[in-house]
Amino acid sequence: MGGSLAGALRGHVSRLVGVDRDGETVAAALAAGVIDAGTTHLTPTIQTADLIILATPVRAILRLLAELPSARPTGCQVLDLGSTKGAICAAMDNLPPSFAAIGGHPMCGKETAGFAAAAPGLYQGHTFVLCPTARTTPAVTAVAAQVVTWIGAQLLFMSPDTHDQIVALTSHLPYLAAAALMQQTAAAAAAEARIWPVSGAGLRDTTRLAGTDPDMMLDILLTNRAAVLEKLQDFRHGLAQLAELLQNEDEAGLRAWLTHSQQARHTYNTF
Amino acid sequence: MGGSLAGALRGHVSRLVGVDRDGETVAAALAAGVIDAGTTHLTPTIQTADLIILATPVRAILRLLAELPSARPTGCQVLDLGSTKGAICAAMDNLPPSFAAIGGHPMCGKETAGFAAAAPGLYQGHTFVLCPTARTTPAVTAVAAQVVTWIGAQLLFMSPDTHDQIVALTSHLPYLAAAALMQQTAAAAAAEARIWPVSGAGLRDTTRLAGTDPDMMLDILLTNRAAVLEKLQDFRHGLAQLAELLQNEDEAGLRAWLTHSQQARHTYNTF
Repeated sequence: MGGSLAGALRGHVSRLVGVDRDGETVAAALAAGVIDAGTTHLTPTIQTADLIILATPVRAILRLLAELPSARPTGCQVLDLGSTKGAICAAMDNLPPSFAAIGGHPMCGKETAGFAAAAPGLYQGHTFVLCPTARTTPAVTAVAAQVVTWIGAQLLFMSPDTHDQIVALTSHLPYLAAAALMQQTAAAAAAEARIWPVSGAGLRDTTRLAGTDPDMMLDILLTNRAAVLEKLQDFRHGLAQLAELLQNEDEAGLRAWLTHSQQARHTYNTF
Repeated sequence: MGGSLAGALRGHVSRLVGVDRDGETVAAALAAGVIDAGTTHLTPTIQTADLIILATPVRAILRLLAELPSARPTGCQVLDLGSTKGAICAAMDNLPPSFAAIGGHPMCGKETAGFAAAAPGLYQGHTFVLCPTARTTPAVTAVAAQVVTWIGAQLLFMSPDTHDQIVALTSHLPYLAAAALMQQTAAAAAAEARIWPVSGAGLRDTTRLAGTDPDMMLDILLTNRAAVLEKLQDFRHGLAQLAELLQNEDEAGLRAWLTHSQQARHTYNTF
């Protein structure tokens, strides 16, 4: 995410400094020419930054936000790219008034993380959610909106809670469904090798998200736990309804249910 | 399926006659040049056929198999393309000995049905399952295997029960998961329009199968009911385990679970 953003911001900002705990990542970003300077040391680097963009997993962003007041006592502007927004925006609310901070979440990504997967075009055409906090000023809002525009994304403002409820449904639940399907299929394939040749594009697409980095997802699930559990509960309830219709051979009920899902998918296709 | 097969068989067989209950489909296939002759009347047409290929939904195949003994008293060779094989192969078992029959299922398809969606390359590189029945002879096996080879598919023999167990897991369960996800998302989107712009490729891929023709799926689910219910039960159990891990904030357990799913997906990717 950070590497892609640096690449997309190139030419739009006067100076880009990359900070990563891994020196090899810094070296790769320097070699690729997407940053002007790079370091593994946060504190000295951020003393002159106008805007700090936190592009790590959610819980690492929370640790960095806790460090900021002592690392940069004079304050600055802060934006983050974290996948869940409740805890992050609450931590931003509690920054000293010298900081101006706004939560962000670009609605794009890959199953593969790390600088090797970075691509400057990653954000192009995707929605970029911005969540105002108690520390959001007109100036940081303008800077964040400018960043979103430069990288070719579509701005959408919403509250942290609305964001977290929506992504629990549109991102975290599909991931869990894909992971559960994949695990069930793999367990069966251990006993019946012909499962793979008899599977096709349907299983492949439905389980694609299961390939997502587990540490990244763990971080997301644990920082959006209540909303994810609620959507998972609704999903299990929907599946139980389906099982009941099938158990009862309720052809009319099943047809109505499946037709409704197909129509929903067509509506979604035309969006 | 039938239209795609006719197109793929063109040039390999001396005469191809298409039969469809819908005269417009017959006219479209004739206009496209994929059949030599076409009709809406089954009985007169099949009197001189060497091989009849039944390419309709499963329950329509069952009705056609019941008609065959009176429609073609002298018998002939029969192959079908039905998506579930238990009931069809049982019906083939009961054909008079003048018939030589083998069950078939090409593991490819589209969400869209009908002749307009037909494509001769549809079968290329996909697995084509053949299920021997009590009426399977070496001659019909050779003819079916030749058809599979001509259309560029990969032959795989298995019992009807093994086939139905596998597709319940790799095709029917992913469809139900996609349909349930789609329906849940659409219900939420009715109250919160920003759900669609905040959704991305993950939801799109995971729910693609929800666009499948509901009548086709109804036919499949009702003729593979026991196996589908069993896989659905296992899936709900897996989701319940996941919910418990998340409820308990069991980070180690959740990491192990998600890592296992990711590894399974990587194994599947390399297949």
